[in-house]
Formats: sequence, C-alpha cells, structure tokens
Amino acid sequence: MTQNVTVVMGQIDPIVGDIRANVELIIEAAQRAKQTLQADIIVFPEMTITGYPPEDLLLREGLYPQVNQALSQICEAVTDIVCVVGYPMMDELGERFNMAAWIEDGMIQASYIKQNLPNYSVFDEQRYFTAGHQPCVVEFKGIKFGILICEDIWKITPSTQAKEAGAEVILNLNASPFSEEKHQDRIATLQRRVDEIKLPIVYVNQVGGQDDLVFDGGSFAISADGEVCVQAPEFKTDLTAVQLVKQADSLIMLDGAKAPLYEGEARIYQALKMGVKDYVEKNGFPGVILGLSGGIDSALTLAIAVDALGADKVEAVMMPFRYTAEISKEDAAKQAMTMGVQYQSIPIESMYAAFEAALASSFEGTNTDLTEENLQARIRGTLLMALSNKGGRMVLATSNKSEVAVGYSTLYGDMVGGFSPLKDIPKTLVYRLAQYRNSISECIPERVITRPPSAELRPDQVDQDSLPDYDVLDAIIKHYVKLDRTPQEIVELGFDAEEVHKVIRLIDRSEYKRRQSAPGIKITQRAFGRDRRYPITSHYSEC
Amino acid sequence: MTQNVTVVMGQIDPIVGDIRANVELIIEAAQRAKQTLQADIIVFPEMTITGYPPEDLLLREGLYPQVNQALSQICEAVTDIVCVVGYPMMDELGERFNMAAWIEDGMIQASYIKQNLPNYSVFDEQRYFTAGHQPCVVEFKGIKFGILICEDIWKITPSTQAKEAGAEVILNLNASPFSEEKHQDRIATLQRRVDEIKLPIVYVNQVGGQDDLVFDGGSFAISADGEVCVQAPEFKTDLTAVQLVKQADSLIMLDGAKAPLYEGEARIYQALKMGVKDYVEKNGFPGVILGLSGGIDSALTLAIAVDALGADKVEAVMMPFRYTAEISKEDAAKQAMTMGVQYQSIPIESMYAAFEAALASSFEGTNTDLTEENLQARIRGTLLMALSNKGGRMVLATSNKSEVAVGYSTLYGDMVGGFSPLKDIPKTLVYRLAQYRNSISECIPERVITRPPSAELRPDQVDQDSLPDYDVLDAIIKHYVKLDRTPQEIVELGFDAEEVHKVIRLIDRSEYKRRQSAPGIKITQRAFGRDRRYPITSHYSEC
Repeated sequence: MTQNVTVVMGQIDPIVGDIRANVELIIEAAQRAKQTLQADIIVFPEMTITGYPPEDLLLREGLYPQVNQALSQICEAVTDIVCVVGYPMMDELGERFNMAAWIEDGMIQASYIKQNLPNYSVFDEQRYFTAGHQPCVVEFKGIKFGILICEDIWKITPSTQAKEAGAEVILNLNASPFSEEKHQDRIATLQRRVDEIKLPIVYVNQVGGQDDLVFDGGSFAISADGEVCVQAPEFKTDLTAVQLVKQADSLIMLDGAKAPLYEGEARIYQALKMGVKDYVEKNGFPGVILGLSGGIDSALTLAIAVDALGADKVEAVMMPFRYTAEISKEDAAKQAMTMGVQYQSIPIESMYAAFEAALASSFEGTNTDLTEENLQARIRGTLLMALSNKGGRMVLATSNKSEVAVGYSTLYGDMVGGFSPLKDIPKTLVYRLAQYRNSISECIPERVITRPPSAELRPDQVDQDSLPDYDVLDAIIKHYVKLDRTPQEIVELGFDAEEVHKVIRLIDRSEYKRRQSAPGIKITQRAFGRDRRYPITSHYSEC
Repeated sequence: MTQNVTVVMGQIDPIVGDIRANVELIIEAAQRAKQTLQADIIVFPEMTITGYPPEDLLLREGLYPQVNQALSQICEAVTDIVCVVGYPMMDELGERFNMAAWIEDGMIQASYIKQNLPNYSVFDEQRYFTAGHQPCVVEFKGIKFGILICEDIWKITPSTQAKEAGAEVILNLNASPFSEEKHQDRIATLQRRVDEIKLPIVYVNQVGGQDDLVFDGGSFAISADGEVCVQAPEFKTDLTAVQLVKQADSLIMLDGAKAPLYEGEARIYQALKMGVKDYVEKNGFPGVILGLSGGIDSALTLAIAVDALGADKVEAVMMPFRYTAEISKEDAAKQAMTMGVQYQSIPIESMYAAFEAALASSFEGTNTDLTEENLQARIRGTLLMALSNKGGRMVLATSNKSEVAVGYSTLYGDMVGGFSPLKDIPKTLVYRLAQYRNSISECIPERVITRPPSAELRPDQVDQDSLPDYDVLDAIIKHYVKLDRTPQEIVELGFDAEEVHKVIRLIDRSEYKRRQSAPGIKITQRAFGRDRRYPITSHYSEC
C-alpha cells in the first residue's frame, strides 16, 4: 500500500509578543495550506506563537496564560490538518521549556521539549529554559515523524535518538538568524545529519526582521540521500509543499518547488531591506528620515530605505557647513531627485556660530580640536531629531561597521537614530553593495562611489588622514572581532604591526560609544551588540 | 595537639582585564597578610586574576596564556603563605572553566572548578564556562579546607559534596554584586548552608565598581553555629583575619574583627559613590562635568560626584532658558558654591533661536509640541559634550530610574553622558538619599528638596502634569519591573487601573531609549540594562 503525505513548510513572520496576531497568522496559513496545497501537515518555525526571540518577556508569568489560550484557539480552529507549532511553556514549578506541539483533531497529541539550548553569540536560551531529554515521534498515515527544534539538529544526539525511537522523517522547527554564510552552513550541517541518520529532514525557518536580527526564511527539505528536494524562497513569507511517499517500508521525499536563492551582495542587500522594513513597520513609524551628506554611507542607506519602504516614506536632509564640498551638495540633491524622496537642505552655520559664541569664554585659550568637529555632527543630529519629533519619522543612522569598530563617529551626532542599517557592514562592503544596487538601476551618483571618503568636518579632510586604507582596516577588524585573532597572529598574516596595534586599541577603546548606539542588522558571524559583550571598563590588552 | 590557622580574607579590587596589575595586587596583599596578620592562608575573590565579570574577553584565546603567566608569577612570588586565587582556564579542547587554585610552596597543589554557573539576571556564565562536578578538599596543618566558588554556596549540592569529601571548613570565593538587600541575603543563605553542613564558611567578596555593577566587599566568616564571627568592611579594600583552632577532632572559628555595616540610604549612597569613583578612575577620566538644573536629580548627582572624586574634579554647568525659574538659578549656584566646584552658567537662548530659525520653514503650520522641549534638552546635551570634549571630563547623566522607566527624558538631551549614577534610583529614593546626604552636612539647598519637581521645558510645567505622583509611579514600576507582576495583580493591590495601564504602556514603549542610555549603577534586584533584556520590537501587552 502506498501512502502520500504532504507537509507544508509554514514560513511565516510572527511579531514578537503579538500573540493574538500570531495565532491568526498560524490559523490562516494552516487553512491556506490545506485549501491550496492539500496539506496533511503544516510545520511552523520555532516559538511560532510568541515570535523569536522574546528575550525577557519569557520571564513574565503573564505570558504563559496567553500562550495557552493561543494553543486552545489553534486546536479549535485547525482540525482538518496537523499543525506543528512552537511555543514556550511554564510548568507548575516555574520551570520553562522551549516546546513544539503536534496538534491533530483539535488536540495536542504530542509535544517535544528542545534539548540543545544555545547560549552563545546572540542566544541566551539557558537564561530561560530547562532542556528536554526525550525524543518525540508521532505516527501519522503510517509514517513516523520525529520532531526537533533548531539547535537540536546542529548536534548529533537528538536526531539519532529520534531515529532510534522509530522516526522515518524529521520535522525541524527553526528560528535561525541570517548571516552571510548561514544558508550554506545549514545545508552542510543537515547533509552531515542525513549522512548519519539516513532520514529526510524538513527544515522550517522563521522569516522577518526583529531588532538586530533578520530571519531569512529559506526553508528547505532534504532527502535521506542529502539532496535538497524542496527549497522555499528567502526573505519572504511562504507556504511550500514537501511530498512524502511511503511504499512498503521505504519512505521517499519527492522533488518539489525550488525557489532560486540570492547570492553575495544581493543576499545581504535583501537582508538589509527586510531588516529596515520590519523595524520601521513593526514599530509603527510612518517613515524614516536621514542626513544625506554626499558620502557613500548615507547614499547606500537612502537606497536601502527607499527599496524597503517606498520613496514616499523616506525623507533626506542635507546639512551643509563651510567644509561641505560643492560636489557633496550636488550629489546629495541628485540622488534624492533620482530616488524621488522629499529633500531639503538646512545649512548649519547659524547654529554653529551660536554655539561658538556661547562657548567662547569657556574655550578661551584652547586650540581647535575634535570638539569643533563633534559639534558639527551634534548640530546635525539635533536637527534630524527635531524633524523626526515633529513629523514622526524615525531617524536612520548611517554609520558603517568600520566606523563603529574604531569609534570614527560622533556619539549623539552622526550616531543618532532609531536604527542603524549599516552597523554590521564594513566600509569595503558598503562600496560593493552600492555597486550592486547601481547595477539594478543607477541611483547612487557614480562620483559618490569613486571620490575618496571624507567626513568633511575640517578643510580637505579625508578618512585616511586618521585611518588605514579601508581594505586594510576591514581586514584587521575581521581578524580581531570576528575571528578573535591576537594582534601577533594578525601581524604574522602580513599586516603592519603599528597599524594592527593602532586599530585594535581604537576598537578596544570605543566600546562606550557602541554601548549607546542604535541597533543595526547582524550580517556577519559576529556583529557588535549582544553578539559581542565586552566590558567598557577594561584594561585588557593583547598589544 | 592544638592547631591554629589564620585565614585572611583578601578583599581586593582587581580591574577587569588588567592582569598584570591584578597580579601585583594579589602578591602585595599576600605579603602584607603574612607580615601584618601572620596569615597562613589568604583567600581572594572569584576570578581574581582577570577581575569580574570579564564578559566576552573570556572568548579570546589570547587571554589564557596571560592568565597562566600570572599564575606562574604568583607561584613564584608567594611561597610563605597559601594563596587561594580565582581565574579562568581553557583546556586543550577549547572548553573554559571558572577555577580556583590552592597555591602552596610555589605550586598549584589543587584546583577546583565551579559547579553552579549562574545564567540569570546580570550573569551569563553558561555563555563561557563548562561546569565542574568534583569537590576540592585540601589538608593544611591538619585541617581540611573545601573550596567553593560563589554560586556554589547558593545551592546545597557542592557544599554537602565538600563535606562528604572530608572538608572541615569551606573557603568560598565570590564576585557578588551589590543590591539593596544582598548582604542580608548572603548571611541568610550561608546560615542555611551552615545549618545543613555544620561547617564554618569563609566568604570572600570582590570590592569595587565595574561598569553597571558595584561589588560591595563585606566579606565575612560564619561559624558552624551560624554566627558571624568576623566581618570585613563594606566598600573598601581590606585584609581581615579569621582564626581557626583545631583541637582533637573539633574545629572552632574564633570571634574576630567586626566592621560596622552600613544600612539603608547610607549603604546605597556608598554604592553610588564607589560606582562613580571607579568608573571615572578606572577609565582614566580627569574628572566629571554635569548639567546642574536646580532640580533634585542633578543636585544629588553633584553631591555624589564630589563625595566620590573631590570638588576639584567636578564641574557644574547651569544652562538656563526662558522657562528656568529664578530659584533654579539661585539654588544651582548656591549648591555649586557650597560644594566648592567649578561652576558656570551658559544661557541657551541664542542656540535655541538659531535652531528655531533654521527649522522655521520645515515647521511652518505645525504646533509647538514635545519637539521644542526636546530641542532645549539637546542643546544642553551638545553644550555639555562640547565642554567634555574640550576639557576631557566625562559627562555624568542625571536621569533617575523613574524617568528611565517611563521614558521621561530626552535621548541625546538630558540622557547624554558616559555614566548615569541614578539610573537605578527611583525618584522617591532620590529624595531620601538627598535628605540622607544633607543629614551629614547640608549641601543640597532645602528648596531643591521641597519644591515640586519640574523639567522646566515649558511655562509652569511640573512632572505631575504627565506622570502620576512619584510614590504611586515608583510603586507601579517596582511591581511591574522588579516583581514581574501583571497589571491586573497591581490593580488588585489597590492602584488605579488607568494609571497602572498608562505607566506600563510607557515602560513598554521606552525600551528604545533605554537601549541607548549610558550605563548606571545597579542597586535594585532588577536594574534596566543587561539585568532586564527586553526586545525593542515587541507587541506584547498584559494591559
């Protein structure tokens, strides 16, 4: 006898904490999967009901009655399809668990407790959860389904345990955040698992932006031979079917839809777009505003914002001063016109003069230094915030990762903003992304890309007055921040010792600035923020 | 035969990451303990060599050779006294452990691995460490010493295990941060332990400020009967001796020095003083500068700063505007004079006028709103930062916990600063601390304490125009933030439902501001910051 079972990957975008809306998303997706894809089973991402990561909301006892009510609603509404859904649970002793429920015929027929709780990088799951120890295998239409949650599949024990308990296929619920090489890592990891357990795996991921994380979706199903049979699209909500056929004792996963995947800069650009869009929309802002300087960082930020939100939701402001080059003004105006955004220019001379006069007696006898440069940046920040306060549009900060690393930005100046899209994008990648974006349609004036970068805070200033070339700087940052190499190891790779030490000292000393910076989108293996938790007060040095 | 052993509690203040300096502290303390107290053993706090908490410095492989070298130096330098010292270790597989070493005769004779790794509140130890499973008991002069590290003593297993392995006395190395009721908690917890294991315990704590944590010291020794026999002082480095006498099979802890303890407001004030002093000095600032408004928050902050650093290291700036009352100017000047700090007044009218003119066309047809209030605050923030940049003194932010909770403060305005001493002090406690400080010597003008609080950002404004009375507000904040009570539970305690819901919504919505705020000193059971990790993007509500 042949059994056919259709499993749909419910790649949805729940909003953290919005339990009522998330339940509606779940029910709607289940119904649509049944109606349009004839699904027997729909599998959702990890912690579907709360969205991921709910962080310390998990410590609130008030959360759990809401989650239980949500489960009841799903049981009641979804009766003609099996629904595998993730959620947090608290037991009578106050212990919390990261769970998945198999909901069939209006009841939770089985449930699973996550066994491997990640507590590294951006993850704090051991802060919240007690680990499970048991497999969960459910038989449906003659096929035995093993349930695992996210990190469980990155280790060998839970999957072999599920196999030993009789599983013929693994359903894996995930909330796996995007980073550059993550999708390849996932495929490679699952291929190793499949090689070990010889079972097909259905991998369902969350999609959408949540503060500094972007979940890229890209759910997929992999056969017992390690072939990707079905691939859902990245960076969008989606329902894709996976067909399982059981004949005699053998289970086969059929080839199905294979969405094309993004690569390289295109993939990162999608992540940035989604991160901006979701931060702005989920937080209810009517749009964004940013300072457009004529430089590459703000130019790329503007392009991302327009692509994410539409030109009518984006406003750009040029705030020239005596050091602003004519070509900066021209290029800013040109890009704003090309992209069709509201644009204005507010010169900052009069405010600068007022501060200068007010501070004259305090500054008597001192030399011009960074103070005056920071003052320009802070006047611009104050103007942007005033426009934001009045119109309701959120300020986008435009600092890139290279600047954030070495502190080449002004606290309360160019660092103002609710969100910082390029926070994890090194300057060299800023250039590559700008070129990528222009290859779709030219929106960033060529001159912005080709001229030497400058903060334009003093006459004839260029970034390389105080920093190494960006290709060198970005490489040192990568070795030190992402790869945790020592200065000596970096020097041994061929970098100049003095430059290495200088850059590392700058990184070490800039933690206080980063601590007050806006969240941005993690795209590398180690972003600044909760991914890298350094003390501010620290005399540690490897130099 | 009678054996006498003198254990000295080495209550030192290591600087995070300053391994070389910490080793010197350790060696110097060991020598002094030997010479002045005839110590046989000196016990130091948890992670003595790196200071606590080193956070992600622990992920750097480069740290461990430095720690090993430090251990060698200690072994070499300290040979006439046993030295029990805490440190992190990495094994050949890359696993990390939180350790303590028993150094005797120039060698590590025994070592212990911490078993209970706290991963709640401000602690992330499971991010870094693998737990141990073994007791460590060392015999010295006929007495068996069991070693435990911090959290180990808060659970029963490690201490019973040490007893079963023969321990007659427990040496407990701690890095236990201050909070209001913490010292009483520690005593009560150790009394329970002693009640279970019937062994005396020597509890050694770190002292000193580290970013948002203050370690209060207050090391103590408790007999097998649960009596505190020896008490070291709080909030200062110290060496205090504990005498153990063994006769036949019985071990007795003798009564020794008992430093008086601080209580109530006095204790909190000490914590604030130490937090400010250590943040400023360990980060190498020549002093601090703050905006003095004539209100109670800046008045108390000034008092703390002067008490912590001395008047010559503190500078106050009044930045009046058209809404600043005459009495505010008088009181600010008066306090500055009383406290002997450098003081100046910089009116902000001219800068406000310049911004108003620059924004006139953008703001045409709009009404005056919060924008104009924020603008005043941001001009003041920019002035303070300019003075800070020029002179090198760090800005102290003056917001209290009530404001931080409900977002009653301006991002990049009155929130600017490198450190925020009152961040965890509710407004009602600000008043009590001001009164306490004045009871020592009057430094805050009485009128500052008695007049109704006002931000003075519009005519005749008082805080209670937009907020409930502070005693009500602070109580709601306590129930919601510290005790995790639901709105319904809070209303059932007798609070007005509308006020409860309003305050909670304000708290929920202000996370984005808190995320960009300066670190401050944790004094409650739950401070904002890494102690309370909430998503910014969240639709969660219990209202």
